[in-house]
Amino acid sequence: MSSLLPRSVEIVEVSPRDGLQNEAVNFNNSEKLFLIESAIDAGLNRIEVASFVNPKRVPQMADGDEVLRSLSERAMQGAIGLVLNERGLDRALMTRVREINYVVVVTETFSQKNQGMSVAENLEALYRIAPRAAANGLSLTVSLSAAFGCPYEGEVSIDRFSSVLSAIAELEIDEVAIADTIGVAVPPMVEERVALAKELLPSDLKIRCHFHNTRNTGLASAYAAVIAGVDALDSSLGGIGGCPFAPRATGNIPTEDLCFMLERSGISTGVDLGAAIEISEWLSQKMGRPVPALLGRAGIFPPQ
Amino acid sequence: MSSLLPRSVEIVEVSPRDGLQNEAVNFNNSEKLFLIESAIDAGLNRIEVASFVNPKRVPQMADGDEVLRSLSERAMQGAIGLVLNERGLDRALMTRVREINYVVVVTETFSQKNQGMSVAENLEALYRIAPRAAANGLSLTVSLSAAFGCPYEGEVSIDRFSSVLSAIAELEIDEVAIADTIGVAVPPMVEERVALAKELLPSDLKIRCHFHNTRNTGLASAYAAVIAGVDALDSSLGGIGGCPFAPRATGNIPTEDLCFMLERSGISTGVDLGAAIEISEWLSQKMGRPVPALLGRAGIFPPQ
Repeated sequence: MSSLLPRSVEIVEVSPRDGLQNEAVNFNNSEKLFLIESAIDAGLNRIEVASFVNPKRVPQMADGDEVLRSLSERAMQGAIGLVLNERGLDRALMTRVREINYVVVVTETFSQKNQGMSVAENLEALYRIAPRAAANGLSLTVSLSAAFGCPYEGEVSIDRFSSVLSAIAELEIDEVAIADTIGVAVPPMVEERVALAKELLPSDLKIRCHFHNTRNTGLASAYAAVIAGVDALDSSLGGIGGCPFAPRATGNIPTEDLCFMLERSGISTGVDLGAAIEISEWLSQKMGRPVPALLGRAGIFPPQ
Repeated sequence: MSSLLPRSVEIVEVSPRDGLQNEAVNFNNSEKLFLIESAIDAGLNRIEVASFVNPKRVPQMADGDEVLRSLSERAMQGAIGLVLNERGLDRALMTRVREINYVVVVTETFSQKNQGMSVAENLEALYRIAPRAAANGLSLTVSLSAAFGCPYEGEVSIDRFSSVLSAIAELEIDEVAIADTIGVAVPPMVEERVALAKELLPSDLKIRCHFHNTRNTGLASAYAAVIAGVDALDSSLGGIGGCPFAPRATGNIPTEDLCFMLERSGISTGVDLGAAIEISEWLSQKMGRPVPALLGRAGIFPPQ
């Protein structure tokens, strides 16, 4: 097979946050803890576990601080908390979380709707947050949301994407996550935008990609991202995060399907596929419907 | 974007045959005709429309000859019939079909179970069929089934695949279709096997790939096949061909999702996405369940 393939890629499990946030069924604290600890058992060491956002806007995440208080020490080593503003950072600093993910939406309309501020205002907040995170020893990822298309403005030009990259290039951050929030990325766009991020950002900054399988192109984009040299990919066990029966479903790419594709391609993820499928089945039972992931239904190949 | 992308790829619509064959709901003759003629209206000119197999084994296809009698002249120009033996060829020659698809299973156990003969016996039958097809002016595709993995024998070695390619390299055929019958192909395997086919087969022979989305890797494999230089890809409207609620679902890759990915990547397919989604919705209503395709649920992007 091709000699250009990387030997491994890091998987960031987002089901406890991006996954559950978009599900109708509410998971209680102990169920979230079970999900997180089981994911670690399956080899998913880096996990988005909580969101320091306004609990009135996202009630599923209201117990974020409590979840963080209850997690084991090994879970805390790879636990990530989502932060959308300085109040969120304040809350994160009161917990044991050592890594945060800050979201910058690339387009104006979506930035106003999602964050309640302009892109420039959001970047200014980030300019205050990044030094505070660094001073407090927090790892900081900046997620560039709607990087491949906007639900309100349509296409996102390479110039718009480039200008946001340039605006964060001088900051003391650890990672940039290029996020296809609405599932409209395709492989050539992924190659182009990952290459641009590598060109405009410092070489020691990690690059991560976040895809949704909204239009069935998520795994093709993820594979393109790996070939383009990203360090990490987001995914959610079962592909939860969007109801398959709802219009405009927006599930994350399924962890077990992604890891099956990568492992079978010779790219190590460290994930135990059988264990991942078991968690997925538990999620399915808890939610009372099949999850979007397909590996559990079809079976690992070759059979083990 | 990348300059290595081909400008176009041909889509072969397989829903009337590989799709419906695996569905519990039976479509009558006029419904099949509606599906085929609508698919042509949507830009899908090359369509697998019938199967000249034993009607006792595949009752859904028993009306193949009748479907072919009723099709319009424009439909007949791109109509393909599946043939599994010389009796099938005899039946095909009694119809207006101008193109046939003959299946060679790459592995012994699956060949015995699916065709009732060994690989060598099947190749011998093909050696009689190929000249007869050519003498009668029929285009002939040879599909290599289970080319990426076998449901009975597991992994299919590159040597086994190579030996079957070599066995057909001297025949007067028009196209070889490399088929991932059970949905276990991944991009590096696709690159490797397409490259090998190009190396071992005459340069004027067309190469086509056939993927199932059984483990969510179908579109990633299809994209890899296009980059590897295949001339054509199989897909089915709605992704029909496997029930999403059944264990070991085996749907074809969905035509509308595939064409969305390719068109958005700058690779022309000639398919009208909106028209494809409409047919898919009709299929969904007729079958009384959602189809696996996601584009219709999420919507074309950017909105049109």
